[in-house]
Amino acid sequence: MKISVLNGPNLNMLGSRESAHYGTGTLAELEDTLRKKYPDVVFTFYQSNHEGELIDTIHQIVKGKKSCDVLLANFGGFTHTSVAIRDALSMLKLPYLEVHLSNIHARETFRHTSLTGGAAKGIIAGFGFMSYELAVDAAQRLHNA
Amino acid sequence: MKISVLNGPNLNMLGSRESAHYGTGTLAELEDTLRKKYPDVVFTFYQSNHEGELIDTIHQIVKGKKSCDVLLANFGGFTHTSVAIRDALSMLKLPYLEVHLSNIHARETFRHTSLTGGAAKGIIAGFGFMSYELAVDAAQRLHNA
Amino acid sequence: MKISVLNGPNLNMLGSRESAHYGTGTLAELEDTLRKKYPDVVFTFYQSNHEGELIDTIHQIVKGKKSCDVLLANFGGFTHTSVAIRDALSMLKLPYLEVHLSNIHARETFRHTSLTGGAAKGIIAGFGFMSYELAVDAAQRLHNA
Amino acid sequence: MKISVLNGPNLNMLGSRESAHYGTGTLAELEDTLRKKYPDVVFTFYQSNHEGELIDTIHQIVKGKKSCDVLLANFGGFTHTSVAIRDALSMLKLPYLEVHLSNIHARETFRHTSLTGGAAKGIIAGFGFMSYELAVDAAQRLHNA
Amino acid sequence: MKISVLNGPNLNMLGSRESAHYGTGTLAELEDTLRKKYPDVVFTFYQSNHEGELIDTIHQIVKGKKSCDVLLANFGGFTHTSVAIRDALSMLKLPYLEVHLSNIHARETFRHTSLTGGAAKGIIAGFGFMSYELAVDAAQRLHNA
Amino acid sequence: MKISVLNGPNLNMLGSRESAHYGTGTLAELEDTLRKKYPDVVFTFYQSNHEGELIDTIHQIVKGKKSCDVLLANFGGFTHTSVAIRDALSMLKLPYLEVHLSNIHARETFRHTSLTGGAAKGIIAGFGFMSYELAVDAAQRLHNA
Amino acid sequence: MKISVLNGPNLNMLGSRESAHYGTGTLAELEDTLRKKYPDVVFTFYQSNHEGELIDTIHQIVKGKKSCDVLLANFGGFTHTSVAIRDALSMLKLPYLEVHLSNIHARETFRHTSLTGGAAKGIIAGFGFMSYELAVDAAQRLHNA
Amino acid sequence: MKISVLNGPNLNMLGSRESAHYGTGTLAELEDTLRKKYPDVVFTFYQSNHEGELIDTIHQIVKGKKSCDVLLANFGGFTHTSVAIRDALSMLKLPYLEVHLSNIHARETFRHTSLTGGAAKGIIAGFGFMSYELAVDAAQRLHNA
Amino acid sequence: MKISVLNGPNLNMLGSRESAHYGTGTLAELEDTLRKKYPDVVFTFYQSNHEGELIDTIHQIVKGKKSCDVLLANFGGFTHTSVAIRDALSMLKLPYLEVHLSNIHARETFRHTSLTGGAAKGIIAGFGFMSYELAVDAAQRLHNA
Amino acid sequence: MKISVLNGPNLNMLGSRESAHYGTGTLAELEDTLRKKYPDVVFTFYQSNHEGELIDTIHQIVKGKKSCDVLLANFGGFTHTSVAIRDALSMLKLPYLEVHLSNIHARETFRHTSLTGGAAKGIIAGFGFMSYELAVDAAQRLHNA
Amino acid sequence: MKISVLNGPNLNMLGSRESAHYGTGTLAELEDTLRKKYPDVVFTFYQSNHEGELIDTIHQIVKGKKSCDVLLANFGGFTHTSVAIRDALSMLKLPYLEVHLSNIHARETFRHTSLTGGAAKGIIAGFGFMSYELAVDAAQRLHNA
Amino acid sequence: MKISVLNGPNLNMLGSRESAHYGTGTLAELEDTLRKKYPDVVFTFYQSNHEGELIDTIHQIVKGKKSCDVLLANFGGFTHTSVAIRDALSMLKLPYLEVHLSNIHARETFRHTSLTGGAAKGIIAGFGFMSYELAVDAAQRLHNA
Repeated sequence: MKISVLNGPNLNMLGSRESAHYGTGTLAELEDTLRKKYPDVVFTFYQSNHEGELIDTIHQIVKGKKSCDVLLANFGGFTHTSVAIRDALSMLKLPYLEVHLSNIHARETFRHTSLTGGAAKGIIAGFGFMSYELAVDAAQRLHNA
Repeated sequence: MKISVLNGPNLNMLGSRESAHYGTGTLAELEDTLRKKYPDVVFTFYQSNHEGELIDTIHQIVKGKKSCDVLLANFGGFTHTSVAIRDALSMLKLPYLEVHLSNIHARETFRHTSLTGGAAKGIIAGFGFMSYELAVDAAQRLHNA
Repeated sequence: MKISVLNGPNLNMLGSRESAHYGTGTLAELEDTLRKKYPDVVFTFYQSNHEGELIDTIHQIVKGKKSCDVLLANFGGFTHTSVAIRDALSMLKLPYLEVHLSNIHARETFRHTSLTGGAAKGIIAGFGFMSYELAVDAAQRLHNA
Repeated sequence: MKISVLNGPNLNMLGSRESAHYGTGTLAELEDTLRKKYPDVVFTFYQSNHEGELIDTIHQIVKGKKSCDVLLANFGGFTHTSVAIRDALSMLKLPYLEVHLSNIHARETFRHTSLTGGAAKGIIAGFGFMSYELAVDAAQRLHNA
Repeated sequence: MKISVLNGPNLNMLGSRESAHYGTGTLAELEDTLRKKYPDVVFTFYQSNHEGELIDTIHQIVKGKKSCDVLLANFGGFTHTSVAIRDALSMLKLPYLEVHLSNIHARETFRHTSLTGGAAKGIIAGFGFMSYELAVDAAQRLHNA
Repeated sequence: MKISVLNGPNLNMLGSRESAHYGTGTLAELEDTLRKKYPDVVFTFYQSNHEGELIDTIHQIVKGKKSCDVLLANFGGFTHTSVAIRDALSMLKLPYLEVHLSNIHARETFRHTSLTGGAAKGIIAGFGFMSYELAVDAAQRLHNA
Repeated sequence: MKISVLNGPNLNMLGSRESAHYGTGTLAELEDTLRKKYPDVVFTFYQSNHEGELIDTIHQIVKGKKSCDVLLANFGGFTHTSVAIRDALSMLKLPYLEVHLSNIHARETFRHTSLTGGAAKGIIAGFGFMSYELAVDAAQRLHNA
Repeated sequence: MKISVLNGPNLNMLGSRESAHYGTGTLAELEDTLRKKYPDVVFTFYQSNHEGELIDTIHQIVKGKKSCDVLLANFGGFTHTSVAIRDALSMLKLPYLEVHLSNIHARETFRHTSLTGGAAKGIIAGFGFMSYELAVDAAQRLHNA
Repeated sequence: MKISVLNGPNLNMLGSRESAHYGTGTLAELEDTLRKKYPDVVFTFYQSNHEGELIDTIHQIVKGKKSCDVLLANFGGFTHTSVAIRDALSMLKLPYLEVHLSNIHARETFRHTSLTGGAAKGIIAGFGFMSYELAVDAAQRLHNA
Repeated sequence: MKISVLNGPNLNMLGSRESAHYGTGTLAELEDTLRKKYPDVVFTFYQSNHEGELIDTIHQIVKGKKSCDVLLANFGGFTHTSVAIRDALSMLKLPYLEVHLSNIHARETFRHTSLTGGAAKGIIAGFGFMSYELAVDAAQRLHNA
Repeated sequence: MKISVLNGPNLNMLGSRESAHYGTGTLAELEDTLRKKYPDVVFTFYQSNHEGELIDTIHQIVKGKKSCDVLLANFGGFTHTSVAIRDALSMLKLPYLEVHLSNIHARETFRHTSLTGGAAKGIIAGFGFMSYELAVDAAQRLHNA
Repeated sequence: MKISVLNGPNLNMLGSRESAHYGTGTLAELEDTLRKKYPDVVFTFYQSNHEGELIDTIHQIVKGKKSCDVLLANFGGFTHTSVAIRDALSMLKLPYLEVHLSNIHARETFRHTSLTGGAAKGIIAGFGFMSYELAVDAAQRLHNA
């Protein structure tokens, strides 16, 4: 099974960000963990701080140039404001699973809504790195269902 | 490991509700599935359409009269309006995991915010029955961490 | 023909409430009047101040345990705030007719919207006891149509 | 007994409008139906797409030039925006009953409030043509009370 | 000096309207009073309940077909909602004076703003018939200035 | 090909209105221009400052009494407030093209939304008289497509 | 003198709740303290987490089945959202005094308004247990006035 | 007849303020003009930039220490924000007439509402110095009525 | 024990204000009552209609120039709008108790929030003069605790 | 004549996007169509999903490095949120024409406003590919005027 | 060069206020620092907790009675609410520089907007005492430019 | 001392932008000026119209790859909307100083709030190029403190 994992702005800095919200592990460690815990899954990891690159990557998946069975993504600060990413996600035929490290409902008001989440199959938020693992679990079950 | 699963209003009617949002399985089937898939977990299931009974049950857990390691709950329509349930959840020392069958961000505006979610460790929404399974996975990992 | 009449919070107190809005008759008198004026209709009357019991009763109707052809209800103060009752009403296959003693558009702003009314076939408001009679008339016509 | 029935904008087009909301009968059929079902009531029917004519007609009634016992009206799209019609209705000494074919609480947000309804004795909405019949029933009972 | 006095919806009914807000005199009495108190002024009085006729009349003045030095108007319920009347008033080269019988700031919230007033030279509100007299005084002084 | 061109309030006054927003040509000149530039199109021009007459005219088109292939309209100040015109437009089977002389997004906030535009096939705004020409171009292409 | 003390959701858990807002004493200790400090007052204490039971209890007082001279109540999380409790309180002939342990104006925005407080004689908030004592003082003075 | 004229913040600076809104005359000239034009009226003029002094002065009038028949006031920037001045005005037994030099409905949004105007008999705005003269006219007529 | 009692705008006029909200006693009578009922308390009374003087007085207390153990204050109309008074109160090391004669939650919407109350230890509202007595009771208990 | 056509996020995916809103043609087909239909126009086409690249391109036009007579653009999801693009457009000396494939007034609320449109000469929306053709027509007429 | 430094409410208490926001230095120390660091500048310092005195002082400057080249001010809590001070500042011919000790964008929502800042040449916020020094630097450069 | 100066969208176009708001100097001139006026400071200048590049650059500083003592930035149109940049700034250990050429409080409403400013040490706005100089002054003083 193939899963594309797309991380948005500031997620390359995991480990340096406010640990109360984002934990102390790095993005590389997150990727390692996923690869080790799910040896049967072929992961492709992308990270970008550029809204346009995130959209480009979604397009690659839509066009089948980057092939995968599920898109798992955390769009960071773009989650709450990007109509353009939401529009890109709306083109996907495969499931999009939205992930957040922190519980967005327990933070500032401007993080309480998810514009990109309106295009998701499901959302998992608040579990730190484990949010990604749960999303992979979900992806596998959706794939096998 | 012990998990209390608390279901709020209308969840006893699963199988009779709008299947586009809630699927076709019944609550009994959901409970069976969880018991079978997680034989090592001791589940206690509560369901009530009464806000007061849901609060009473949370209190039992807070007081240790109903002992468990994690609270997993879906407060249905109370999710968006109940200050009283949120206040009850704030007393919990153990983790509260919020679950929704449907993706609340993709439905009517009055479902986009989660008042009870502000007191959660994490939220999982949109995967149907699988939302509960993922929450049990999360509970186990939190327990073993 | 069978009609379930469901009355919500404070309607058991009719006769003691602000008479400008609610008239001077009691709930028993309302029930008597309906039974006498509509001898061909089999009425079942429920009243509760508990949101949960109102939901439970709607469920009994959905499941056919309390059989009726039409649900006629006045949810009082819950009309404006209860997502959970609205969700319960959405499961009904038979028509739900919403009734209000007073004209909600001529009172405080917080009474101008009806959340439960979004799930109704029709709404009748402002005629005092006669609102119920008109709703029974409507139920009969719908039944015979 | 005399009832004036006042229909506002687009109601002359009944039968041509979106049938999901407004049914398939024409305004003439509605008028016929009322005349036949209520042979003891003297109906006067007015319809206009002109806010000013609707106000003029209400004035005729206020001044007793068009005599009736009850005003029954459906102001269509003006319901939600016309302060001027509401002001005209406030002059009436006889009861004003507001009627809507569709359930305004189950449609677009801009139809959820009724400005003209603030001047009504009562409101009946959602029953299609039957809304008018129920209003005539109500008018008769108010008249005989 | 020539003054056009334009009265909007429901002002033809003065004397029949809620006397607490509008006094007990009729529109004819108002016109008589103005004519008698200001013998040097040539008044032209128009009243209409039709937004379109009010706009037409303003156009007549703009085009000089109805000649006057000042426009004095009370647009009643249209004051708060009519972009179209405001647009018509914006074409006037001569002064527009807005008049209200009642103090709009002391009534319902939906009367607190004046959309048409944004196109006025000045506004006089709350003095009953005297509001018109004061506006004529103002018109004369503007004319003589 | 037949096109009905419907102009709302104040558009009869073109040439006298604020030239920065509306240009200096008159409505007659606009009509002439269209007739000359599009000799193959049979134009019917209506203009009214009366919301009711605009609705009546739309009804004539709906009923086929005034036959045309496309409705092209500029509802002026009613664009932003008229639920009744929007309801009339919703009955049309043929395309409705909305036109504005000025760019509504670059003016006062109360002109930024178009209620009538919600019922349009397309909207063209900001080009002065040319907005109408572009709409005729569009109508022809739609007709020939 | 007889005082009914009604405590709403989560107040049975005093001593276990966030001590910064609610102090460390238990509800039993609160009741003991009141009984000891006010030996001349006959207290009846009710606590419920069920909105319906709180309404039922208010009804008992309205009907005189539970006799008292003053109602003193803290509706916890229902304070901010319950139209139904407010409606019940509006029936009371005797004074209703609202009490809060914490200062609602110094907490989250959703606690700044009191819907139930609109039906109160007076409100006392922020003094912890002492809020209740002050309310008893007030009740006594009102009783003796 | 005695009239107190109360001017609020910045009105002492007339002549130095933005002449487009406030004209070029000084406050002394305004006072002179009024005295000359109305020789039969005994004017008392107060001006203060201090909200407290304005309130004190209103109190003097309420208590009869500063005797007058009518209060005429322009509270400048306090018009839109001062609950305290409104409360003071509410104590007056004699008429309060509110005056503005500029048309508040044609300026910034934060000037469109008048909090103090809610306590006025009438409001006159937009006529520059003439607003005061018209208010004196009004005061005289009210006095003689 | 020493208590400073600070009264804001219009409270010097007690006895002359709307008695439904504020009772019929004067401020002097209120002060007398407090002195007589609490002979062991050394009261210092200040009243001002000037926001600046109220701030100055709070500063005197902060600096210890006016020594007291508790500040008890009613800021009248400034309660709802004064950031500056709130800022002054935030400097106090001793408890600030906010008092209102009327129940602010049962009046106009613009009185429902208390900006100054955000800096209070507790709030007592709605009991008329008794609000002050209850606040003195509270002050004494806080002092002795 | 030279026209720059700038397409924003997701427009490279035309043909794969929701056909109800965007039609079934590709961007290449759109470009081809324009080139063929307007052989006298020299088109330069840019597309980017990157807000920054869109801004860069506008700058090239402002600086004359990419020379053209008119800018025609569709900023997709950035239309509703990008202050930065609006700022870039404000620098243009040549006309900017805004184009949308779908009618933004007939879709989700967050698409009803156009921030970038505030800097446009005119806007054309809802005609699918034909929106672009109409914009080229407009550009030509503006150029020849 | 002459600079008037105007400090509003609570700034006389510097050193006693919340040090996290306002630092630990006193106002005298601030004034001393400025005098020492800028020996070539003639400073005049005013501080008042009275909105009216602040307005009076601005008037003195407008009238040239207190002569200076630049006004530097911190209006404390009045910054966010005072239309009257903003109106006074609008009369200034010389530059007004607004200063804040704390970063108003990083505090409570009611501090995020600056009403008085709308009349400023520039704003400097968040640097503590250094905000004033930077403003003096700015004043000097403006003066020498 | 080392200062990184980060300029966001459209700031590369200084000199071509609306001179009323942004002056007539170019970005190169701004950089030259700073280098000349502050020979002891080592400046590194970055400019980008790409939100992602701005975030990347902030990350370089966070990671120490681009070493500096203070970050000075003007995020142009992103100031008001970018959660992602705010999140990046929150990682900085060194001070972030926000700069604006124009006074954001004196322009369109959508520029009145600063989302990125919530993460700043201080903000300087409205002084044109001098805003940057003042920020460098501030940086030096912070560095030497």
